[in-house]
Amino acid sequence: MIDWIADYYENVEKYPVLSQVKPGEIINQLPLSAPNESESIEQIMSDVNSILMPGITHWQSPNFYAFFPSNSSGPSVLGDLLSSGLGVQGMIWATSPACTELETRVLDWLADMLQLPDRFKSTSAGGAVIQDTASGAALSAVLAAREKKTNYQTNETGCLGNLVAYISVHTHSSVEKAIKIAGIGKNNLRLIGVDEKLAMRADLLEDAIQKDIQDGLIPFFVCATVGSTSTNAMDPLPEIGKISLNYKLWMHIDAAMSGTAAICPEYRHILNGVEFADSFSFNPHKWMFTNFDCNCFFVADRSALIRTLSILPEYLKNKATESGAVIDYRDWHIQLGRRFRSLKLWFVIRHYGINGLRFHIQEHIRLAQEFAEWVRSSEDFDLVTPAPLNLVCFAHKNGNDFNRNLLETINNRGKIYFTHTVINGQYVLRMCIAQTNCKAEHVSQAWKIIQETANELANLDNPGSE
Amino acid sequence: MIDWIADYYENVEKYPVLSQVKPGEIINQLPLSAPNESESIEQIMSDVNSILMPGITHWQSPNFYAFFPSNSSGPSVLGDLLSSGLGVQGMIWATSPACTELETRVLDWLADMLQLPDRFKSTSAGGAVIQDTASGAALSAVLAAREKKTNYQTNETGCLGNLVAYISVHTHSSVEKAIKIAGIGKNNLRLIGVDEKLAMRADLLEDAIQKDIQDGLIPFFVCATVGSTSTNAMDPLPEIGKISLNYKLWMHIDAAMSGTAAICPEYRHILNGVEFADSFSFNPHKWMFTNFDCNCFFVADRSALIRTLSILPEYLKNKATESGAVIDYRDWHIQLGRRFRSLKLWFVIRHYGINGLRFHIQEHIRLAQEFAEWVRSSEDFDLVTPAPLNLVCFAHKNGNDFNRNLLETINNRGKIYFTHTVINGQYVLRMCIAQTNCKAEHVSQAWKIIQETANELANLDNPGSE
Repeated sequence: MIDWIADYYENVEKYPVLSQVKPGEIINQLPLSAPNESESIEQIMSDVNSILMPGITHWQSPNFYAFFPSNSSGPSVLGDLLSSGLGVQGMIWATSPACTELETRVLDWLADMLQLPDRFKSTSAGGAVIQDTASGAALSAVLAAREKKTNYQTNETGCLGNLVAYISVHTHSSVEKAIKIAGIGKNNLRLIGVDEKLAMRADLLEDAIQKDIQDGLIPFFVCATVGSTSTNAMDPLPEIGKISLNYKLWMHIDAAMSGTAAICPEYRHILNGVEFADSFSFNPHKWMFTNFDCNCFFVADRSALIRTLSILPEYLKNKATESGAVIDYRDWHIQLGRRFRSLKLWFVIRHYGINGLRFHIQEHIRLAQEFAEWVRSSEDFDLVTPAPLNLVCFAHKNGNDFNRNLLETINNRGKIYFTHTVINGQYVLRMCIAQTNCKAEHVSQAWKIIQETANELANLDNPGSE
Repeated sequence: MIDWIADYYENVEKYPVLSQVKPGEIINQLPLSAPNESESIEQIMSDVNSILMPGITHWQSPNFYAFFPSNSSGPSVLGDLLSSGLGVQGMIWATSPACTELETRVLDWLADMLQLPDRFKSTSAGGAVIQDTASGAALSAVLAAREKKTNYQTNETGCLGNLVAYISVHTHSSVEKAIKIAGIGKNNLRLIGVDEKLAMRADLLEDAIQKDIQDGLIPFFVCATVGSTSTNAMDPLPEIGKISLNYKLWMHIDAAMSGTAAICPEYRHILNGVEFADSFSFNPHKWMFTNFDCNCFFVADRSALIRTLSILPEYLKNKATESGAVIDYRDWHIQLGRRFRSLKLWFVIRHYGINGLRFHIQEHIRLAQEFAEWVRSSEDFDLVTPAPLNLVCFAHKNGNDFNRNLLETINNRGKIYFTHTVINGQYVLRMCIAQTNCKAEHVSQAWKIIQETANELANLDNPGSE
């Protein structure tokens, strides 16, 4: 299997990046019933190769520029394999002390690597936990904020309809989902407008808070984004932070992909203002070469989180928990059971070293900036938004239908895979340059494909022009 | 790494099952900072062996009888390794059609293997999804129930304080957690009393519902348990189901561990009444040899679930989704991103075959019944609750303090690991016989250790008796 995976990485560029199968094409090749008798791993792998592989979209291809990445890497696969093999379930400290204590230490490492304030470290009143995704982290933040604001009474009485939360129109959809899940209701979620860089406008945030207070409502939560999904917009953390402090809102920072860049001293400024935050989350499973799932969720006041999510039935009681000397991470998130996910993170950080991680991140940003420069100098394409890091948003001058057609044509040919967003009615192409193995030659090939395909489509539209 | 894991399984019985380290013993051996430069996998594995291994509680030891199992197996580790290697993120169909379609087919297999009603299959109005844990499934069920009952208005307005949910005093804590998370509030959760077998009393459930209706409240959700965590109690599904139907409650069935037994025709009766359920969940990561995490969540009305949890931002829009011809599993659970978890399940089912799975489950139940018989015939121990399947709840006649001391003494010696619960004030020992590799000799050795240690402690208490 290790050999199969090594071969896969070696040959991944031979596959179309975006799977080209039609709906039902995979499932219709799979038997309708489970086998009664044992089948060999060889038979299963033969079906992997013949049936499943055409239905794989290759997130680990260096030609994958879609969405945000979901990166893997050799050390991460090994660390995750060790986790599967050990099969440890770390819901409480006693069920594997190493699972809890390695996680605590590695997350403290990350706090230092990102220069987070000390209050996010386990040695303070705060701490951190590995969550599944930024969605889980956002939900946990909303819940802790809800309980802290209501003196932990909402857990008892249910929501009362008077709490209000704030995000920007470009905040990730997971926060809206969290607000719905938590019983707050979308009607109590304010979508704050953005400036020309698509970052939340702090003045509009304050206006909205003041209006809600006048209306007898209780502002309790704001999410600021470091690197929005659509365009990598950077919300103004210090301004939002000061407002949160003034009006006693829980400030959560979602830095899902871009947070990783703060490991590099020259990009640490993207987190300026994090000292105001009550919680902060980023995903090593995006841009830090740690395979899915691995979100790191930091809180300044762990007691708020724990008090919100803790339930201790008799069958989980134990001496270590009662001593108060240990962390039981089950109280830090939605689910009870938990995998030994810090292993893969520890493998990745040690294998690359801080300098190795920085090297890859810096290289991705350098390549993205180069790509942005090509777009800027192009006669046919415009850069639509600033490209602060590794995400380039651009569009062909020929308008929305042309860009949509361009994207679909290129993706259907399978050499590269990238995706789109819509900004103020404009259909915008997104190139996220962040895949573990993406190198200069891949990015220049991508740009060549985009230009050539655009020319081809332009000529089809307008055959006389040639 | 594969060799390391194979060696580990071969030698797992040489370790104390319950880790014997003290709080802080692991973390204090880990450096305070991440390394700047790359370290080799050999260095990392050396630390795994010397620092981490003493801090592992060995869930994969055949001498692990604690809690519920979290089983792994060879094919599962391989399937999970393939998932890590492919590094696919299956949030929507297009991001890897095989990830979605294999999951759909394997879950339909399981519906047949468990003889679930057709309405839980993808070919009907229902369907299934792999969730992280039974906690995630319970939360999803509560949310879909909340929205269906309020015509999908709670997502908009927030909770209004008038919805009421029902569980028994022995329902798993995750449902109480879900009720709190969903903004319903613990005050709106009724804990229904149980009968002498610790199963929910349907008459008390109906009484509670009627009282709440009289009080102007809106009953919306009930959770029935197949195999409670404390004692494997079986709630009466048909009776609860009929009440749910009459009063229009969403009925969720939590069969986290014990559901797996229904794969065997002779134990399928434990699911009689599942035809009334709106949702059903069980964990192949417990007793079906599929490593954590892997919960299977079945719903009869997938539109309720999807309408509750769906949010479609521009950057996720795509032709396949718009065609309506595909499943986007991101709308079926809390998180957006998702791992290719059906691979390990597919590997396990095919490697064992249905007959192989049945063989292991039947063997575990046979061993547990034998153990229960030893307890019954013992002069020193009592069987405290019926042992319908593979969990035996028993206690030494010498009372609570003696049993607590007995449990701790045995666990601290590391030969076996088992845990406790409390039933009506009685401290009860739990032996859950379900670990993948547990065989007759392990169970008889466990019984020997329990008897001998009990005699030793009894003699210490009462030295004159010898």
